[in-house]
Amino acid sequence: MKVVADFCLIPLGVGNSLTKYVAVVQRILANAAEQKKISYLMHSCGTNIEGEWDEVMGVIKNCHEKMHNEHGAPRVHTTVRIGTRTDKSSSIAEKVASVQAELKKHEG
Amino acid sequence: MKVVADFCLIPLGVGNSLTKYVAVVQRILANAAEQKKISYLMHSCGTNIEGEWDEVMGVIKNCHEKMHNEHGAPRVHTTVRIGTRTDKSSSIAEKVASVQAELKKHEG
Amino acid sequence: MKVVADFCLIPLGVGNSLTKYVAVVQRILANAAEQKKISYLMHSCGTNIEGEWDEVMGVIKNCHEKMHNEHGAPRVHTTVRIGTRTDKSSSIAEKVASVQAELKKHEG
Amino acid sequence: MKVVADFCLIPLGVGNSLTKYVAVVQRILANAAEQKKISYLMHSCGTNIEGEWDEVMGVIKNCHEKMHNEHGAPRVHTTVRIGTRTDKSSSIAEKVASVQAELKKHEG
Repeated sequence: MKVVADFCLIPLGVGNSLTKYVAVVQRILANAAEQKKISYLMHSCGTNIEGEWDEVMGVIKNCHEKMHNEHGAPRVHTTVRIGTRTDKSSSIAEKVASVQAELKKHEG
Repeated sequence: MKVVADFCLIPLGVGNSLTKYVAVVQRILANAAEQKKISYLMHSCGTNIEGEWDEVMGVIKNCHEKMHNEHGAPRVHTTVRIGTRTDKSSSIAEKVASVQAELKKHEG
Repeated sequence: MKVVADFCLIPLGVGNSLTKYVAVVQRILANAAEQKKISYLMHSCGTNIEGEWDEVMGVIKNCHEKMHNEHGAPRVHTTVRIGTRTDKSSSIAEKVASVQAELKKHEG
Repeated sequence: MKVVADFCLIPLGVGNSLTKYVAVVQRILANAAEQKKISYLMHSCGTNIEGEWDEVMGVIKNCHEKMHNEHGAPRVHTTVRIGTRTDKSSSIAEKVASVQAELKKHEG
């Protein structure tokens, strides 16, 4: 089952500058993407991620584990939006493109 | 890694009465709880769920699969809040109790 | 426009024990409920809140302002699920009751 | 109080193709941005939006109202992540840039 998801991970108890921790997450994502497990795209309030359910959830679990075990975060809070569909496939790139095409149709 | 989470699952393309589908989710949860895999508590905008990471995520995956394969939903959208911590354990029940104790302290 | 929502507010940069801050939010909610602006119900991963859109969002805004101005939180992160409907009214209490009725139907 | 948020709006009871409705939301956002009320950036699982609290929440409220009143959606479900901070300002663009700078530092 393929999933297009979006997640935002926040370590708690590590102060209020989170840039360093966001970079940790991005490196985990880059590594998983190199291994062709997932695709991802960071935005300013989270990260789009797509792939098989177990790969996507495995990456997010990996982020929690690394935050606790290697980066000293006593608590980690993540919010995830998960979308699955059986009617057609839809990648991260296709979803944005189809909205832009719809917007164009009504502009002409 | 233990997780205390909260999720809200919405099937799309099945009309606007979702009670039947919420009941499907609740039966999946009840079944997993009977097998001691997870604990859960439904509220009016989602369901608290706690247990080991893989069990909790496995139940949510199971809900998506059943919605697609047995209940005809072409799309399923779920939002999840996930909390993990290494400083102490905290169950669903303890979290509410600790807030109520804090509120009492300031009332006296 | 009436809204049934669920929110989870997390102050960042204030350490990893959040019970005190959850209690602050609960007192703001109790105060708004006394004034009949909203109804609410805390659970272990957030709080259900219902009322007119502007009242509900006003209470959440008030929580952010108080966290910053009176409780020293440099950052506040909140996630909200918002539901509105025009087909029928549905309160926090009714939503849980309708699922329980559905579950009962299939047990007999 | 300035807010950097991310929201994902889903109309229910209108079938499983949502592209048309996402385009409606994007036009509301474009209109508000032209009036300098907010800035926004669509991604494949939602839209970043920033501005004053009341402007940002007003736009999301406007989306719900238009979905119900002009586009026939009996139910609308939205999830929002809201971030406010008093320690420094941080725009949508700055947040992504600061993570990319952090990633660069560790590459060299």
